Amino acid sequence: MKKLKFAVAGLGRIGKIHLGNLCQMEGIEVVAAMDPMEEGRQFAKYKNVPHVVTSFAEMLTVTPIDAIIICSPTDTHADYVEMAAKAGIHVFCEKPLDLSLDRVVEVLDTVSKSGIKLMLGFNRRFDKEFRKVKELVKNGAVGEPHLVKITSRDPGAPPVSYIKTSGGLFLDMTIHDFDVARFIVDKEVEEVYAKGAVLVDPAIGEVGDIDTAVVTLIYTDGTMAVIDNSREASYGYDQRVEVFGSKGMVQSNNNFMDSHKLYNEQGIHAALPLHFFLERYREAYMNEIGDFAKSLENGNATPVDGNDGLQSLRIGLAAMKSLKENRPVKISEIVPLP
Amino acid sequence: MKKLKFAVAGLGRIGKIHLGNLCQMEGIEVVAAMDPMEEGRQFAKYKNVPHVVTSFAEMLTVTPIDAIIICSPTDTHADYVEMAAKAGIHVFCEKPLDLSLDRVVEVLDTVSKSGIKLMLGFNRRFDKEFRKVKELVKNGAVGEPHLVKITSRDPGAPPVSYIKTSGGLFLDMTIHDFDVARFIVDKEVEEVYAKGAVLVDPAIGEVGDIDTAVVTLIYTDGTMAVIDNSREASYGYDQRVEVFGSKGMVQSNNNFMDSHKLYNEQGIHAALPLHFFLERYREAYMNEIGDFAKSLENGNATPVDGNDGLQSLRIGLAAMKSLKENRPVKISEIVPLP
Amino acid sequence: MKKLKFAVAGLGRIGKIHLGNLCQMEGIEVVAAMDPMEEGRQFAKYKNVPHVVTSFAEMLTVTPIDAIIICSPTDTHADYVEMAAKAGIHVFCEKPLDLSLDRVVEVLDTVSKSGIKLMLGFNRRFDKEFRKVKELVKNGAVGEPHLVKITSRDPGAPPVSYIKTSGGLFLDMTIHDFDVARFIVDKEVEEVYAKGAVLVDPAIGEVGDIDTAVVTLIYTDGTMAVIDNSREASYGYDQRVEVFGSKGMVQSNNNFMDSHKLYNEQGIHAALPLHFFLERYREAYMNEIGDFAKSLENGNATPVDGNDGLQSLRIGLAAMKSLKENRPVKISEIVPLP
Amino acid sequence: MKKLKFAVAGLGRIGKIHLGNLCQMEGIEVVAAMDPMEEGRQFAKYKNVPHVVTSFAEMLTVTPIDAIIICSPTDTHADYVEMAAKAGIHVFCEKPLDLSLDRVVEVLDTVSKSGIKLMLGFNRRFDKEFRKVKELVKNGAVGEPHLVKITSRDPGAPPVSYIKTSGGLFLDMTIHDFDVARFIVDKEVEEVYAKGAVLVDPAIGEVGDIDTAVVTLIYTDGTMAVIDNSREASYGYDQRVEVFGSKGMVQSNNNFMDSHKLYNEQGIHAALPLHFFLERYREAYMNEIGDFAKSLENGNATPVDGNDGLQSLRIGLAAMKSLKENRPVKISEIVPLP
Repeated sequence: MKKLKFAVAGLGRIGKIHLGNLCQMEGIEVVAAMDPMEEGRQFAKYKNVPHVVTSFAEMLTVTPIDAIIICSPTDTHADYVEMAAKAGIHVFCEKPLDLSLDRVVEVLDTVSKSGIKLMLGFNRRFDKEFRKVKELVKNGAVGEPHLVKITSRDPGAPPVSYIKTSGGLFLDMTIHDFDVARFIVDKEVEEVYAKGAVLVDPAIGEVGDIDTAVVTLIYTDGTMAVIDNSREASYGYDQRVEVFGSKGMVQSNNNFMDSHKLYNEQGIHAALPLHFFLERYREAYMNEIGDFAKSLENGNATPVDGNDGLQSLRIGLAAMKSLKENRPVKISEIVPLP
Repeated sequence: MKKLKFAVAGLGRIGKIHLGNLCQMEGIEVVAAMDPMEEGRQFAKYKNVPHVVTSFAEMLTVTPIDAIIICSPTDTHADYVEMAAKAGIHVFCEKPLDLSLDRVVEVLDTVSKSGIKLMLGFNRRFDKEFRKVKELVKNGAVGEPHLVKITSRDPGAPPVSYIKTSGGLFLDMTIHDFDVARFIVDKEVEEVYAKGAVLVDPAIGEVGDIDTAVVTLIYTDGTMAVIDNSREASYGYDQRVEVFGSKGMVQSNNNFMDSHKLYNEQGIHAALPLHFFLERYREAYMNEIGDFAKSLENGNATPVDGNDGLQSLRIGLAAMKSLKENRPVKISEIVPLP
Repeated sequence: MKKLKFAVAGLGRIGKIHLGNLCQMEGIEVVAAMDPMEEGRQFAKYKNVPHVVTSFAEMLTVTPIDAIIICSPTDTHADYVEMAAKAGIHVFCEKPLDLSLDRVVEVLDTVSKSGIKLMLGFNRRFDKEFRKVKELVKNGAVGEPHLVKITSRDPGAPPVSYIKTSGGLFLDMTIHDFDVARFIVDKEVEEVYAKGAVLVDPAIGEVGDIDTAVVTLIYTDGTMAVIDNSREASYGYDQRVEVFGSKGMVQSNNNFMDSHKLYNEQGIHAALPLHFFLERYREAYMNEIGDFAKSLENGNATPVDGNDGLQSLRIGLAAMKSLKENRPVKISEIVPLP
Repeated sequence: MKKLKFAVAGLGRIGKIHLGNLCQMEGIEVVAAMDPMEEGRQFAKYKNVPHVVTSFAEMLTVTPIDAIIICSPTDTHADYVEMAAKAGIHVFCEKPLDLSLDRVVEVLDTVSKSGIKLMLGFNRRFDKEFRKVKELVKNGAVGEPHLVKITSRDPGAPPVSYIKTSGGLFLDMTIHDFDVARFIVDKEVEEVYAKGAVLVDPAIGEVGDIDTAVVTLIYTDGTMAVIDNSREASYGYDQRVEVFGSKGMVQSNNNFMDSHKLYNEQGIHAALPLHFFLERYREAYMNEIGDFAKSLENGNATPVDGNDGLQSLRIGLAAMKSLKENRPVKISEIVPLP
């Protein structure tokens, strides 16, 4: 069987995970990797990647490539995707494509014309918990969904320097929840109302962002969703979803370090949730790359596409506008339309 | 020891519960009861209440009374409280005092001048689950509260005829949650944003009400709360609260019919929550009357007072305005101020 | 409707509970009570019992009585039951009837000839948790039962003075578990193997008893059961049961003080089980007296009878023999046969 | 860094897992593999193992090897371990070394004289759940252990043909639990009482084995343990442990397919445990090989040794004797002593 030839662009934390996963998968060979930093390139060499280079452009030329995994900084995504599209190479790109809606529309247009497949890295869609909830909702186990509740809290805030360029809470962190909200019930969002506050760290407020938020979403059919976020949950990574409908309710819980229960005079004690996304979504990262590879092999659509990235970005921009103006904002107010 | 002389006005479902509980309590004797309906009076006679009459005015004259429990229809509350206040008799009144803010302000003024004690029947404050959450929050177990989440869903909608006169979802059902929101963190609400929909029964929409809601509350210090409501949860009465703060999170769960877990080929199965408020809050009803009696005995303030009823009514009216105008509404917009 | 006339013999801890419950039940009046101690009699007078006396014999003469609840010390049970039987008065008697198998056989013979109803106070049969497990087993939810597991641990050992006269761990504490073992699967026990140790308090060993035990039971059809006991569980009263069968497994859990979960940096924390039998079996005590009264009203057999007491005693005696001789003991070795 | 050279003997189900895990581990290279069957050898070739042969003896000669993983049928273990020992190659061997106590003593003697490291594949010691329980017990979290409870049930019985040669339930299946019992509290067992029954499949009884068992263990210091086994749990693989002690209790639970809870009119529904050992102990298999490799690198003792296998075998033989003779059996009755 011919193996798919993969390349990885960007070998930071998430790039290393994808590279490690690719190396374990059958039917795939990693033929190239790029990173401007020596440390990242060392990692690729250790993994026996034959072509390890310092620039994206160089990588496109050294060897034939079927697909590229883009894990470089956000501000390179749009350019790299366009370069790959022009070279006819399929792309898996970490979200977001870009923080500018205009630029995203432009890139998707290029992608569309090129005929390549583009998949966005919304990893939570490949987590067994979220998948199970979606499957049950889809099968009618809760009847007509009335209300979606998403809790999404990080164990600690990233450095303020990162927050400054990340697009802020809604585009950097909540964007995953916007995607989950769309994914779980397969509906589009029409209106957003966002409230936020700086309750964790004043320094986050000083750079114009918030660290705590409650966002109400109204889908086009009137179904409602509520997302709550915090940059700092003292007890670890908190990722839960609940869908309430006409015939029932389904909840998914966190994944825990272990299942022990200790009973003593003080009470009953149990282990905390898995610490952060690398632990909680370890299998999800493996699954998403596997599903991307499968869609290349069988020619089907990727399970997440450019439009998914676009829609979540539009919800995020609407949330930012809502927060600023303290009023509900229609998604249709966010122009240009795609 | 001299026993406190209690009377009960209104012997419908909740009046019977209070009368039954009073009969079991030490230091209390029920000396009178009133109900315009024969069936209610029969119940009181069965319970050996010595004076059973048909009108509130008559009840005030037949025998000396220390305190009256008012469980008659909402539109009689204000008048009865005023009559009791003028007679110098302490009052425990089921919520709400009245659906009109003006009338409530008027009644509270009368009460204040009379010097009687007035307690409102916000029974959830006396539930062991909500109490435990409040106690932990108060003791700093979660640090500074950042976010309060209240889930409150009924097992089935009341008759549309009831909904028409009840004041609607926010004044009839959510008002308990507004009170819980104030109770749990001991803070006042400043702004409300309410979204609602008719997803359970179109007939509810036809009388101008909603059956599903998401309400975001902002407290005066920026803390946020989210309440979600449904008139119909197929799996029973759903009453949960979660408080997330700087040092931790505390959740309370439903109370269940039993604790069994059945494992078989299809999965693991467990019992549903206690069906509705009579089952879930059975002990809470006992506790609240007990605490009311204690405050009469020791001369302390009642654990819930007229202002608590007033504030929840104001939040409810703000929610109605917010829903109608689809914008966040400040509590201060709701006039007259108390 | 004519009310059933009840009397209560012995007003210690459990007698007071039964008396209090009887006072709340419809269709029942408590006409007499006896206790040799002034403190017990005071309690009965406070509860408005009309005839309060110091001896059992006196109680039988002062007023007509339909049924007596016997809560006096164990060594009076047999005599009182016989006296009541001869007087044609139905009896509810706290377990055990007697520690001597011969004496129990004799008493049951007297009861049988008298035609009175006799119910033994195996309160756990009326607990909603054990009932649910039994109901599911009976309905075939687990298929053919293969294995029953009973965990039964007290929060603290009784005084050594009590242990000396109680019959020891197996006759005083485990006897409840032997009854549950028979109740849950409706089968008789054929063989017992008991291991015990003194791990909690050497003083218990000094009076010839044990404080920790594991007992294996074999039913007549080969089904197995395991009971584990401790006199001292630091975390409170631990009462769980599990039935494993050909089609599934059912478990019941403890009942907890409340349902809260507190998440913080150290882990997740929850409340302990209800402290001891008075808290855990509060409703069960109410239910058992109610069911006893119902069997008197409708003439049906009582839900627990003298033979139930006899069989559990036989298992207990077999366990004692097994422990002493360190070998499995057949129930048939325990003579006389009934 | 020099890589450790590993070989794998036997490429059935468990051999493939070990080989796959070895291929992912840093610092290790798999230099040889053997299997008499073509299918197993194909797998090794697919994994790029350079030397793939058909006999153990051949494997020892084709290339230098540091350590061998023995996953061949049980009746080859003893011979292969001795051959490796004589060749000075370290061994990781799946349990049991042999079903004959004499033979095991002989092999361990050979191993001891050779100076090689020998580790037995008691995989559960490397499961995060069992490890956590052991850690808490070791740290004194439950005080002095009084009682250990182990539940161990398989989702389905193996073919009767396998059972005939496996040594039976106690040597094939319960032997893992005997090892866990020793591991969890770090104590030796002194006496065993075993009861068993054929409740799952009469064909199992026809070949002289049982399919359901309850085994009571007494440790040398009087601490007790109870193990319950079934060859067929309809709901999947059931692997739980509970340790009760003077200061508390710790439990570990199964691992589940996902955490969802579905609430509907019928009740609350959740996912089943992970199906069988391959799913439940996936990480444990990785951990055990990793720890074996670590002990080779740093020269420390292996975390499980030949004596661990020997002791569990002795307990298993005592259990067989106890079952046959229906009496408690001392471990010291099982000769020869090691």
